[in-house]
Formats: sequence, structure tokens, C-alpha cells
Amino acid sequence: MKHTPQAPSVADADSSGFSVELGTDDPLRLDCGVDLSPFTMAYQTYGELNADQSNAVLVCHALSGDQFVASTHPVTGKPGWWHILIGPGRPLDPAHHHIICANVLGGCMGTTGPSSIDPATGETYGVNFPVITIADMVRAQAMLLDHLGIEKLFCVIGGSMGGMQVLQWASMFPDRMDTAVPIAAAARHSAQNIGFHEVGRQAIMTDPDWHEGSYAAKDVSPARGLAVARMAAHITYLSEAALRRKFGRKLQNRSQITYGFEADFQVESYLRHQGITFVERFDANSYLYLTRAMDYFDMVADNNGVLADAFAGTPVRFCVVSFTSDWLFTTSEVREIVHALNAVAADVSFVEIETDKGHDAFLLEEPELHATLSGFLSAAAEKFGSKTP
Amino acid sequence: MKHTPQAPSVADADSSGFSVELGTDDPLRLDCGVDLSPFTMAYQTYGELNADQSNAVLVCHALSGDQFVASTHPVTGKPGWWHILIGPGRPLDPAHHHIICANVLGGCMGTTGPSSIDPATGETYGVNFPVITIADMVRAQAMLLDHLGIEKLFCVIGGSMGGMQVLQWASMFPDRMDTAVPIAAAARHSAQNIGFHEVGRQAIMTDPDWHEGSYAAKDVSPARGLAVARMAAHITYLSEAALRRKFGRKLQNRSQITYGFEADFQVESYLRHQGITFVERFDANSYLYLTRAMDYFDMVADNNGVLADAFAGTPVRFCVVSFTSDWLFTTSEVREIVHALNAVAADVSFVEIETDKGHDAFLLEEPELHATLSGFLSAAAEKFGSKTP
Repeated sequence: MKHTPQAPSVADADSSGFSVELGTDDPLRLDCGVDLSPFTMAYQTYGELNADQSNAVLVCHALSGDQFVASTHPVTGKPGWWHILIGPGRPLDPAHHHIICANVLGGCMGTTGPSSIDPATGETYGVNFPVITIADMVRAQAMLLDHLGIEKLFCVIGGSMGGMQVLQWASMFPDRMDTAVPIAAAARHSAQNIGFHEVGRQAIMTDPDWHEGSYAAKDVSPARGLAVARMAAHITYLSEAALRRKFGRKLQNRSQITYGFEADFQVESYLRHQGITFVERFDANSYLYLTRAMDYFDMVADNNGVLADAFAGTPVRFCVVSFTSDWLFTTSEVREIVHALNAVAADVSFVEIETDKGHDAFLLEEPELHATLSGFLSAAAEKFGSKTP
Repeated sequence: MKHTPQAPSVADADSSGFSVELGTDDPLRLDCGVDLSPFTMAYQTYGELNADQSNAVLVCHALSGDQFVASTHPVTGKPGWWHILIGPGRPLDPAHHHIICANVLGGCMGTTGPSSIDPATGETYGVNFPVITIADMVRAQAMLLDHLGIEKLFCVIGGSMGGMQVLQWASMFPDRMDTAVPIAAAARHSAQNIGFHEVGRQAIMTDPDWHEGSYAAKDVSPARGLAVARMAAHITYLSEAALRRKFGRKLQNRSQITYGFEADFQVESYLRHQGITFVERFDANSYLYLTRAMDYFDMVADNNGVLADAFAGTPVRFCVVSFTSDWLFTTSEVREIVHALNAVAADVSFVEIETDKGHDAFLLEEPELHATLSGFLSAAAEKFGSKTP
């Protein structure tokens, strides 16, 4: 087992981080039946682990996220994607918590994924990378924690695809965690969401530069397809109200429509920008694999149609969060989780937050979310005896 | 002026139709400032015009529609797109009405559009075709009616982009029509809708086979991009509830997920099919032009922020229809039209139809829609003295 610290201290505030090779002796058995061995997990940590290991928090990232949850992103130079929630006096505070965030299996920021070299061939995996599931991502994270010597987490938290991982954690490893905070996530992916993902995948896979997934060998990338995929997805992350408030029909640096196909409207310019910047930091094949993992996520089917069975007898304390204007993971879908938890008499708080920001609200300044998390985590710290280092 | 009847009778039930060259002497002045001369309008008619010309109905088609409203489609072999509404005993009945439906300006089924030959160069227009607006489509239709010698319409009816044309008709030519039936349409295109259109256009315009719009000269077509555009759009035509009811997470001809990128789910297979079949009958540049015309549609701005001014003193009787699950043109957007009509004391009925079928409900078997239209049209026939031939 090889541990490659890339930063001098555990309290990593810059944009380097850690990377560890796992599964060398004991492979990761994936849901598809393939044994992955070895594989790399790239991760960041913030704050120190206390003596009784009662303050470890695992943050699970979303589809387009990565381990740079509270560090400047090495490619974009932007603040970490959850810097709003992590810091002094914030719900997750490195002065109190030992925060860990790992790039997911299948990702493209250092953890093994389709853009990694297949040790068996010496070539980039491409679509020879095995198709992974949310459960596989969670198994890989559990192996990382084993390696770090962390037996139990105070909290597993994440939004969207991160929330799916939280639910999977609670189902597979209820004894390794005190609390679970799935935000804006459902127990199974809807037909509409699968549909939008398939549009994105088709945009990538029909880009001639995709080359059946082997674009790395040709030194090109299906950037056009990936940008279109990102544009389509991005609309689903916002609400109609947010789009109207932010852009409406406002024109982009012009006073009149141009009777052409340039980005006359601000909303067009914004979406094009989202597409173009995304391809600079994201691998197209990773996009295929992670969307597929989300599509395959179905804890209802995994439990023979009874979601409650996933949580029977759970000792985990849950805080489930939805947003009123989220149409990707609606409150009614999120409520299915709450109903299942209620059915097994789990300890669950459910908060539906009134906002017009849509699905992306979990990434944005949303005071009620912050208040909810702060309140839940401090009450839980008292209950479970999580201590400041 | 050249009139080329391609079918032996006016009551055309087969898939041929009529085509006429217009604007030879008197050009069509477009909103962008270009004079279009000459241009061709391809159209179908059903039923006979009565002696006092009181039974003419103009049907305006939607983005992906055409003039084959009640005839077998010449490419797909499928029934006309509104055959459910048109026929003996149906709301539009060729025994009572003289129904006209023309392919819109910018379309690709015989009316002049970007896939037509530019008479000035002898080459396909491509993106040299002038960018057109909904108002331009309506002006072209009015010229067709002039040619046909029809001074006044009993009704102008259409859904979606067709509904936009209806509104534009009522605004520009209130004295040429008795009634207007805009269905599932708004007075201006929303930021979200512009966003989805821009995704589709980017899918087409980044397809290497688009060749800056000059694909016809290279004998190729950006079929991959157009298929992706259609897939994305198609999701917006359905509701989440309809997708769940029709497909849910059902698998396509398999009992297990395959851990791959084939169409495991029925919803994926369905969307891929929608994309593939669309490219067989639709021109990619037409898709760009028609979506752009919809984006540019803004009757509020056209009337200096006061939509009601578009209808001041209107003698037209309106029946405005929305569908509860339509998220492309929501009831609240449709209501803006109704409020504007109320503000000028217009004669307006507003019907919101309860359905889970989404935007596409206007094309589907929807008994309440049929009852609404039948009731409105027979009451209007009585009021305006529209007679059976």
C-alpha cells in the first residue's frame, strides 16, 4: 500500500492534497463483478482528527464536483465548491471537524477512473473501465477510511450524487457513522433524469472526437459533445424562476437582437460559458460513467421494492434536506426517503427549504440550509459525544 | 404568380398538396429588413370553402410540425399530426370547415426555408437564409390567403409555436379573423425555453457535419447534432409524471442492467428513437431558424411592455388553452395572455385542462380539449354566422 502525501500537513488549505493506492492485496469487488486492483483515491482533508476519532466528517461530492471542497481548485483557480459551508464558524469547521473529501471512483481528478492508466495494459482505460455504481464509490471510500485508520465517521454529508452516496453509506455501513445528511437526493433516479443524462451521453458519444471512448490515444477529446452535455444538465440545476430572475430575456452586450445565431440573450451566453469552462476540467468518459452510476442508483429495487428495508434497525441519525424549486430531485421524491426512515422508526429530521434557486441551492448561499446543518450537527455532536480536537 | 396544384381535389386526403410561388411582384418584407422575393408556400387543404367564405380555418403548426395536419405524412407514412382533431364529428370537420395548413416560412416541407435554393445564387440558402420571426411566418400566411382569395378566416388555431402564430395573427390582422385559439403558447419565450433551444442549436452547430450551415453543398447533414437536439427538446414536451407513467425505470428488452452504455432503460431507447426518426424528416438549419423565431417572439416587448396593447379594441373572440402539466408553457405564462385580453375587455374563454401529458397534450387524445374546441367553435359559428358549405 503506497501513501503519497502531496501536501505537507493534514490541514490542507492549498490545492494539493493526498493520493493513496488501495486494493493491491485486497481488490475492490465492483457490482458489475470486476475486481479493481489496484486503484488510487485522491482526497483532501481539513482540520485534525481528534484523539477519540469522534469528529471525522466525510463529504461526498456531486457529479461535476471533486475533492476540492474547500480548497482553491487547481484547474479553475476558484474557491472550493462548498467553501460557503466549510470554515470558521460555518456548519463544518476545521477547528472542530476532521473533514475528508475524496474524488469519487470513476472521477477524473486523481482517483482511478476511465482517464487513468489501466495497469494491465499500460493504456488509458477509456470505456474499458468497468461500469461502476454509487455503491462501488462508497466501498472505495470505506477502503480509504480503513487505510486512514478511521473506524467511525461522525457524519457523512453530500448533495445530489453526493446525497446518493450518503444514503448508500447509511444502508451499507450504518455502524460506521453517527449521522447522515443527504441533501437534494432521491433513493432512485427518475425517468426524466435518466432521459437528461442520456441526452448528455449521446452528445458525447456522437461527437466524432469521442472515438468509441479511445480519444486519449488520439490526443483529442470530445469537447463539443461534453460542452453540450453540460449545457443541457446545467438548465436542470436551476429553476425556471432563477433563470427568469437572473437572465429573463435580457440581451448580452447589445441593445437589439441581431437576427442571427450568436448568443444574443444572456442566458445563451451563460450556458455556452458553462459548457466551455467545464471541458477544461472534466473528462468526457468520466461524465459517461458518473451519469450511468446515478441512472443505475435504485435503493428501492435493491431492497426488493421496500426502501425501508435499507434502513431497518439503523442507529444513524438522519437530516434529510430538499429545496422547494428543485425539479431534478423534487421534495416529493426526497420525502420517499423520509417515509422509509419513518417506517423503521429511524431518528430523522426533514427540512424542505423554501428557495427559488433550484437544485443548485445546495451549493449556494442559503441561510436556512446553513442554520439547519449547524443546528443538526451541534445537537448530534452533543448526543454522540463528538469532541473538538 | 404560379399556382402548382399537386393534388386533383381541394379535399386532399392523400399526402400530396399544393404549392404556390408568392412575392414575385410584391416582396415579403421581413422583420430583419430583407425583402424575400419570390418564395414558395406549400400547403394542404381539407373541406370546401363555402359561398360566403365564412368557414375557413387556418391551422398553424408547431416547431416540428408541417402542413400534413390531417394527411398521411409523405416521409414517415404516419397519420397527420392533428388527425385526432380533424375529421367527421371532430372539432374541425371538413364537412363544415375549409381547413388550410401551410408549412411555415423557414420550414423544410416545401415552403421556402434554409434548405431551399436561393434564386439569387442557384445554391441552397443554408445560413444565408434571412433570420425570420413569428410575425414573418404570419405575413407569409396572409399573402397565401390573399392569393387564395380568402379575405377573412373563421378561425386561426394552433399549439405551441402554432399558438404564437395565432397570437401574432390576432395582433396584426384582427379584422381578418373571427376567432383565435392559441393552445399551450406564451406571449414571449422564457429564459429556460431559450436555454433549451440554445442547447439544441449548439448540438447542431458543433456537429462537424454542419459545415457552418453549408452541409447541403457537401452532401452530408449534421444528423447526430439534430438527433441530440430533438432528444433534449422531447423531454421538455413531456411531463415528469408522463415519463414516470410511460417508462419509469423499466428496462428495454432485458431483465437486468448491462453495466454499459447501451439503452438499458426504455426511456433511453424511446428518446434515441425520437432523435433518429426526426432527422429523416427535418432539416437541421430549419431547426435553427424556427427555434430562433420562437426565442425572438416577445409580444410584450413589441408593445412597449404592455401586452394588452397588442389586442386593444380587438373584435376577435378568443379561446385560450393551457395544460396543468405543461412546464414549457405553464398555465401562469398562458394566463398573462388572458389577463391582457381581459384588460382590453376582449371576448375570451380560458380553459386550463387537467392532464399529466405535459406540453404534448395538445397533440394527443385529450377529451376535455376536444369538448372545449367543439363547444367554442359551434358557439362561434352561430355568433359569426359561419355556415356549412
